[in-house]
Amino acid sequence: MAKKQRTAVTPTRSEDYPEWYQQVIKVADLAETSEVRGCMVIKPWGFALWENIQRILDDKFKETGHKNAYFPLFIPKSYFEKEAEHVEGFAKECAVVTHSRLENDGNGGLKPAGKLSEELIVRPTSETIIGASFAKWINSYRDLPLLINQWANVVRWEMRTRLFLRTSEFLWQEGHTAHANKEEATFETEQMLKVYADFAENYLAIPVIQGHKTESERFPGAEDTLCIEAMMQDKKALQAGTSHFLGQKFAVASNIKFQSKEGKEEYAWTTSWGVSTRLIGALIMAHADDNGMVIPPKVAPSHIAIIPIYKNDEDRENVMNFVNNLKTDLVQKRYHDRKLIVEIDDRDMTGSERTWYWIKKGIPIRLEIGPRDIKNNSVFMGRRDLEPKDKKGILKDEFVDSVTDILDNIQKNIFTKALNFRDENIAKIDDNKKFYKFFTPKNMEKPEIHGGFVEAHWCGNPKCEEKIKTDLKVTIRAIPMEIIAEEGRCICCGKPSSNRVLFAKSY
Amino acid sequence: MAKKQRTAVTPTRSEDYPEWYQQVIKVADLAETSEVRGCMVIKPWGFALWENIQRILDDKFKETGHKNAYFPLFIPKSYFEKEAEHVEGFAKECAVVTHSRLENDGNGGLKPAGKLSEELIVRPTSETIIGASFAKWINSYRDLPLLINQWANVVRWEMRTRLFLRTSEFLWQEGHTAHANKEEATFETEQMLKVYADFAENYLAIPVIQGHKTESERFPGAEDTLCIEAMMQDKKALQAGTSHFLGQKFAVASNIKFQSKEGKEEYAWTTSWGVSTRLIGALIMAHADDNGMVIPPKVAPSHIAIIPIYKNDEDRENVMNFVNNLKTDLVQKRYHDRKLIVEIDDRDMTGSERTWYWIKKGIPIRLEIGPRDIKNNSVFMGRRDLEPKDKKGILKDEFVDSVTDILDNIQKNIFTKALNFRDENIAKIDDNKKFYKFFTPKNMEKPEIHGGFVEAHWCGNPKCEEKIKTDLKVTIRAIPMEIIAEEGRCICCGKPSSNRVLFAKSY
Repeated sequence: MAKKQRTAVTPTRSEDYPEWYQQVIKVADLAETSEVRGCMVIKPWGFALWENIQRILDDKFKETGHKNAYFPLFIPKSYFEKEAEHVEGFAKECAVVTHSRLENDGNGGLKPAGKLSEELIVRPTSETIIGASFAKWINSYRDLPLLINQWANVVRWEMRTRLFLRTSEFLWQEGHTAHANKEEATFETEQMLKVYADFAENYLAIPVIQGHKTESERFPGAEDTLCIEAMMQDKKALQAGTSHFLGQKFAVASNIKFQSKEGKEEYAWTTSWGVSTRLIGALIMAHADDNGMVIPPKVAPSHIAIIPIYKNDEDRENVMNFVNNLKTDLVQKRYHDRKLIVEIDDRDMTGSERTWYWIKKGIPIRLEIGPRDIKNNSVFMGRRDLEPKDKKGILKDEFVDSVTDILDNIQKNIFTKALNFRDENIAKIDDNKKFYKFFTPKNMEKPEIHGGFVEAHWCGNPKCEEKIKTDLKVTIRAIPMEIIAEEGRCICCGKPSSNRVLFAKSY
Repeated sequence: MAKKQRTAVTPTRSEDYPEWYQQVIKVADLAETSEVRGCMVIKPWGFALWENIQRILDDKFKETGHKNAYFPLFIPKSYFEKEAEHVEGFAKECAVVTHSRLENDGNGGLKPAGKLSEELIVRPTSETIIGASFAKWINSYRDLPLLINQWANVVRWEMRTRLFLRTSEFLWQEGHTAHANKEEATFETEQMLKVYADFAENYLAIPVIQGHKTESERFPGAEDTLCIEAMMQDKKALQAGTSHFLGQKFAVASNIKFQSKEGKEEYAWTTSWGVSTRLIGALIMAHADDNGMVIPPKVAPSHIAIIPIYKNDEDRENVMNFVNNLKTDLVQKRYHDRKLIVEIDDRDMTGSERTWYWIKKGIPIRLEIGPRDIKNNSVFMGRRDLEPKDKKGILKDEFVDSVTDILDNIQKNIFTKALNFRDENIAKIDDNKKFYKFFTPKNMEKPEIHGGFVEAHWCGNPKCEEKIKTDLKVTIRAIPMEIIAEEGRCICCGKPSSNRVLFAKSY
């Protein structure tokens, strides 16, 4: 039996994928659960990822004409009740504020007091509260389009939580826009999905499939929900972003009316779209490996870790001089509109310990530098996208000159790896038995391991969708944006179908 | 009688200061009250101010070694109860979450359901919840100092609210740090106050006085509270930022212990410090005038508004060409590490309407450009820090070359104006009767108008402080950081005192 390779994360992906996920978060020091039910603490390395996501997306939102604003955390219960499907979707899991102070309970403790005349809901999403403002702000067609975004925390009382993927409180952005007609609102919905898809692929290095949700998977109250779906390394799908065409339903519920050019009073057409800290979960599950986190350079909190190695004081001085000068050279460079961020890790630990520390954190480039490297005016480079042992000496000047190319190469390599993995695990299936077999785990002890994504025909009947969901826990993740006409038969009932949809197990 | 000057804001500052404040917010379109009790909606122009404040401060926090993280919105009641003074300070005004869902009430409405076993408090500040994490993260002196900052929303159930100054929900940052000894924690507390003071003066253009709070004005649970105090145009003081030395009290409450270099188990020394959206209130009350908002260039959402003026299509084409080229030249320039932001306002309104629109918004520079200006290759410039009628023609190239100098000049001018106003309204008073007269409004219909700040002797007795507060609604705003030894007698009781403190009415 071959000697088992030592990995930094236990268990490995193949041993226990769900537990591997939790361990990656731990060894990379990204986040932790708090003692507050379902709420997480996002630690500095994890939060820096979110800050980069925010910065890049915020620029894209502004380039497409949106402005940021901020709306109340609390939604009066009566607002919430205005849109029937919406309240149906969120009432089952929401934090309800009922009192406005605490007072002594007579036993040395505190009890709620100051009962509110109307309960307040901690926002699970802000359509209704932002709608109330839009109704005031919009009077004429001249006020349209109104293009607003909000960065905020939201609360959905999830029963089973999982760091980044599903937590009671999470951070997100929610875009809310109002338009004079259906065409402009549709364009906006599609435009923002494209912004998300571009961001996922070109920054997070996660290939995504763009499509429409089926009616049963739509945002509560939406007329159409567009989504981007990504494949994780356990071959399950993760919805990484959604963009909703709300039609006039929320405008009617919130009374968002305007006087048209022709002088008629009309309801506005609205959209909403959002991505959340869930993207960090996607990043982990798409790229991390059995040695920890792997971060694409464009969103990395730091790009390079320099690990000085020396045995005595004389060496120390030489090495630190060299290392500090190198850092000075590097931080003057820019990588995709951001300064290069370089860490010097001179902690009192062995070189190997420090190297593994940064491998686990997923920093794109590690440089180990000792007296011998200095003599050769070179650095010893390890790239996170390659094997930990795959390191090489490179002349210092050459490294400095080519560092942004190396980072771009890492970025591309991470994307390509994810794309190849996905493409290897998408199948076109036309046979019902094969379909069922594809999604049935070979080993029932590891129910998470199955075939992947399937492109199959669907007749459009919600009952077929429901049956597959019940039988296999497989859902239609997306009806692809660009439908390719193709005659076929529904994978469930065998009735005629004119195009394929994407089926998968999902998070 | 002189003809009354027309102003864009009604009433003016001298007519009704509190109402003027609300009207400035309205005409500049910064924010509005929401229908959710005490919560505000921060509109895009106001939120852009906050984004600039965030960006600049965040850079300064990172330069001083702090990292951002995120902690739960909810604080379990039991955490809250751990520090007695702390809970005393916040229990009277907090939002209490008691239920986790809504269900049908049988009358077509919804009622709270899913009662929580322990109530959750929406954070009014995060010492206790962050303390719980710090207790886990800190084990050894090697883990110290721990320097964390959080950008977040907080809720304090204020009974009387006022946009930006006092709202039930507001946005802020809260720094939380832990140190191995008292000296380092004290240094941190002072360092962060200096960061705030520097930001207030060099970015917001608001001169501030740095000092310690008296015991009665301290943050609940703190051993020392440092503050920056600014004079508003009604001569009242506004606390613009605070930095708290928490000693070991919160470490004891949250059990934040570490093993010292000497191998002993010790409690950490902690600090916390924060500024909030209140700074926007300070900005308004320090600089705005009877024509609306006045924004210092370094925090302005946009720097320049260009107002093209033409009467026919031929002129339009020439003017718009000229204006677009000018914008292209300008946006390539940087002003204090940020791109110049230029608005072209070509809306279908008169030149005068558009000019006044931007005056009210407080944009630093307005350029009116018509066919005659183009012929002379010049622009007609109005500066917001000068009178609306004080405009001048300037050669276009000269304007482009000197624009950052002009902005710096505006920035400096706004600061100097505020500084002069403050210095004119600070008095040293040693006589009790004069002190009382200074703070007594001359016109009881306008109780807000009085003398200003007073530097007076105080014996240190809380009873004297309390009497003055009861008699005059005047409090000790700060015991100056650099105490100037000077023998004197307490302004209240006449007992000996060795230094002056700062008295004022305040927000």
